[in-house]
Amino acid sequence: TGSNSVETDSQTEWTDVQKKIIPWKNGTPSLDLEMVFQDRAAKLGKSNSRLIVVASLIDKPTNLGGLCRTSEIFGASALVVGSLHYIQDKQFQHLSVSAEQWLPLVEVKPSQLVDYLQQKKTEGYTIIGVEQTAKSFDLTEYCFPEKSLLLLGNEHEGIPANLIHHLDVCVEIPQQGIIRSLNVHVSGALLIWEYTRQQVIKQKQQK
Amino acid sequence: TGSNSVETDSQTEWTDVQKKIIPWKNGTPSLDLEMVFQDRAAKLGKSNSRLIVVASLIDKPTNLGGLCRTSEIFGASALVVGSLHYIQDKQFQHLSVSAEQWLPLVEVKPSQLVDYLQQKKTEGYTIIGVEQTAKSFDLTEYCFPEKSLLLLGNEHEGIPANLIHHLDVCVEIPQQGIIRSLNVHVSGALLIWEYTRQQVIKQKQQK
Repeated sequence: TGSNSVETDSQTEWTDVQKKIIPWKNGTPSLDLEMVFQDRAAKLGKSNSRLIVVASLIDKPTNLGGLCRTSEIFGASALVVGSLHYIQDKQFQHLSVSAEQWLPLVEVKPSQLVDYLQQKKTEGYTIIGVEQTAKSFDLTEYCFPEKSLLLLGNEHEGIPANLIHHLDVCVEIPQQGIIRSLNVHVSGALLIWEYTRQQVIKQKQQK
Repeated sequence: TGSNSVETDSQTEWTDVQKKIIPWKNGTPSLDLEMVFQDRAAKLGKSNSRLIVVASLIDKPTNLGGLCRTSEIFGASALVVGSLHYIQDKQFQHLSVSAEQWLPLVEVKPSQLVDYLQQKKTEGYTIIGVEQTAKSFDLTEYCFPEKSLLLLGNEHEGIPANLIHHLDVCVEIPQQGIIRSLNVHVSGALLIWEYTRQQVIKQKQQK
């Protein structure tokens, strides 16, 4: 029947969107990932953002699972992780609440990060480090470009010095308390939110 | 010596700020908590916000510990929890990274919440529920009053209907993904951040 065929189409669509897990190889053109973005945007029937969240330096499965959930909810284009093995981790899955089935995941090992960031630059992305440095922009003053790539630091060491050179800009979250710094999932969530907030306001102004 | 006495003063000050854990009783004037705010602000040498984060409906020690860390970092006046027993929980402590030593904590049991919210209203606080309802404001459009009280919902049930009536306003976070909703710690962090961002911008405009 007609109603059955609609159901089947709909199921096929969701299956297509699911589990886009892409190991990145140096030199590979990113066309495949670009297609996944377009595909997902079309199927969700919503405007898809051009925000890539790079979590390759993060070690804790709980932080990665949380970031996966938050990135999916705000419609990020992809989450980049240091190893796809994390996705099998129970703690990751507990925190991600199955968001990894809907959000494109890309594997970029820490050793591949310099090459990956360089390639994203040539594709027009602004490479934004979430880090406190002498030259960091305050998050209340930073205006995110449409094509933004967020690089999050390691839980203990932040972003290593050799990667800082490859960033276009650093952004820091102004903090007032005695405790030193926010959890990396929360830091990431605040930047993802701020990007989203600015995009929403831009879209309203264009109408 | 002079330098020794400075050291001693400084230690005394920190001890005074530490461990302000206040069980709330219905009808108690909030002068004591007000004094803690002023005290802490003066000792931190920074402007203290008038933001109260109410987490009495939250069950998971990990979410409470995370909220404690985030609230302390953004200089909230106090975190309200349903039971002070949570502070002894290993998971709470792991996530709070000792923020409970610096942030005033208040115990308000879920059964006391209606009375507590009423009292805060008479003290000039706007009672803001973080919840998706037909009448909720979008977080990108909501302007926080200086005296804001955030009520966060339970992980599974959100804010119960009998409490919704006692709110001045509901605010929701616009979400684009397939996964239903953000983790409550992240939702809370985004509202705390948005309050802070707006206060920072107001303070800059006044200069």
